[in-house]
Amino acid sequence: MENNRRDFFKKSGWKITALAATPYLLPSQIASSKKPSQNRKISYELGMAGYTFVKFPLNDALEMTQRVGINYLCIKDFHLPMDSSDKQIADFHAKCEKHNIKGYAVGPIYMKSEEEVNKAFDYAQKVGVQLIIGVPNYDLLPLVDEKVKEYGFQVAIHNHGPGDDLYPTPEVIYEKVKKFDRRIGICHDVGHTRRYGKDPVAMTMAYGDRIYDMHIKDVTEPTAKGRSCEMGRGVIDFPSLFAAIAKTGYAGKCSIEFEKDNTDPLAGIAECVGYYNAIEDSM
Amino acid sequence: MENNRRDFFKKSGWKITALAATPYLLPSQIASSKKPSQNRKISYELGMAGYTFVKFPLNDALEMTQRVGINYLCIKDFHLPMDSSDKQIADFHAKCEKHNIKGYAVGPIYMKSEEEVNKAFDYAQKVGVQLIIGVPNYDLLPLVDEKVKEYGFQVAIHNHGPGDDLYPTPEVIYEKVKKFDRRIGICHDVGHTRRYGKDPVAMTMAYGDRIYDMHIKDVTEPTAKGRSCEMGRGVIDFPSLFAAIAKTGYAGKCSIEFEKDNTDPLAGIAECVGYYNAIEDSM
Repeated sequence: MENNRRDFFKKSGWKITALAATPYLLPSQIASSKKPSQNRKISYELGMAGYTFVKFPLNDALEMTQRVGINYLCIKDFHLPMDSSDKQIADFHAKCEKHNIKGYAVGPIYMKSEEEVNKAFDYAQKVGVQLIIGVPNYDLLPLVDEKVKEYGFQVAIHNHGPGDDLYPTPEVIYEKVKKFDRRIGICHDVGHTRRYGKDPVAMTMAYGDRIYDMHIKDVTEPTAKGRSCEMGRGVIDFPSLFAAIAKTGYAGKCSIEFEKDNTDPLAGIAECVGYYNAIEDSM
Repeated sequence: MENNRRDFFKKSGWKITALAATPYLLPSQIASSKKPSQNRKISYELGMAGYTFVKFPLNDALEMTQRVGINYLCIKDFHLPMDSSDKQIADFHAKCEKHNIKGYAVGPIYMKSEEEVNKAFDYAQKVGVQLIIGVPNYDLLPLVDEKVKEYGFQVAIHNHGPGDDLYPTPEVIYEKVKKFDRRIGICHDVGHTRRYGKDPVAMTMAYGDRIYDMHIKDVTEPTAKGRSCEMGRGVIDFPSLFAAIAKTGYAGKCSIEFEKDNTDPLAGIAECVGYYNAIEDSM
């Protein structure tokens, strides 16, 4: 496995040192460790949404994530509880590092009370990330606004499509957050956008300047009945979507959230990763 | 899984009726059963090289092939021995049909004697395919020439790169077969071509009119040390390769031959399939 493109990064010996006191590693800093001759034309990276592994303990999740060549994890609380001790958090990071994986964000975290907002920010700080994927109630947005100023973190609100009374689409999120600090933005779940009958490409172009995280998945149809499936087997036009993401200058993560076959997801995840990689290589 | 593109084919109810006495189903006939609104711009199809499953019995091979959405298999003798009875062959096809898979070719088959040439053609005829992936010794090419005329089958000679004294590259195959019936051609193994230090894109453009099958794989480096890896993780430029294949009007199969992790290949195969699908969708 020498001399190939994607494995170089894993072998280049970068270390995860980001605990609470360590500055966040910017994507641009990481990208610079790649082979200069193989510079990517895009500034975003593939990641993994922790929810993909809702049926698995952390070690299995990390093994599968490493096998498909992904280096970034959006941390779900079932893998790192919100009341974890410093020791538990340090152990979590050590396990990730063993698999060359870095937790880059926490969430999605629902915030239905002031206490839950406070708890989410404290948790993110202890974990050492500066990005919270969240679902705060509308009336808590002014508090979230104070908090992003206080902590310097970003909050990306996750849309959940049909059935989500608060934030079905990026458009709704944008309308709710536009008057607040620009560190409150969107985690664009393209599957839920499509299930809502909206076009993820158009949403990306319209609200891209406020998108701070992406959960990517394909869905079987553009209605509430649409179910998660392997990228390329469903109804989302990913070549156009990634072209749009690149056009907006997006520099965050595109995290695979694969919900099909959730007791045996590896093959489906791998198919998604291959699909993503080819689009990246075609750009 | 309604309404999506790749699964339609599987649900459209086409039946494999090709046993020994049944005419070979042309790719163009199969393609016509796809949704008219989702016409592909290319005339080739993804397939699976049986060698991928050298460590697995047929049923496991078929299950994995079906799971990644592939409908065509290049049959290896460890799944259907060359001395199989009519009953064994019928059982084999029935198992394939249960998984919506069609055996489209046999091989690779080495032919080192007249007897082995005769046996290969008899076997293909009994199996009901009209394409033999073969490696005939040079001195047997005149006999192969007689046979393709007699049976009307194609023989695609497989290149094996460094260490292959007979047919390392498509170029060598072409030079050997060009004076014979045009039904003797090439099964282009792009991984072995790259391991030989040659460019599979250039080879495709130069010898495409004589290529009747493709074994696709990525390799870790463009030397004899190169090892099989997931498509996109190695050194082959697949977007350019598939553009070249399309340009030559190729209408055969592009069969994944994944040799890495051969006791646990599903994730790697799925990553290759995703990679292929995205290139197709990007074209």
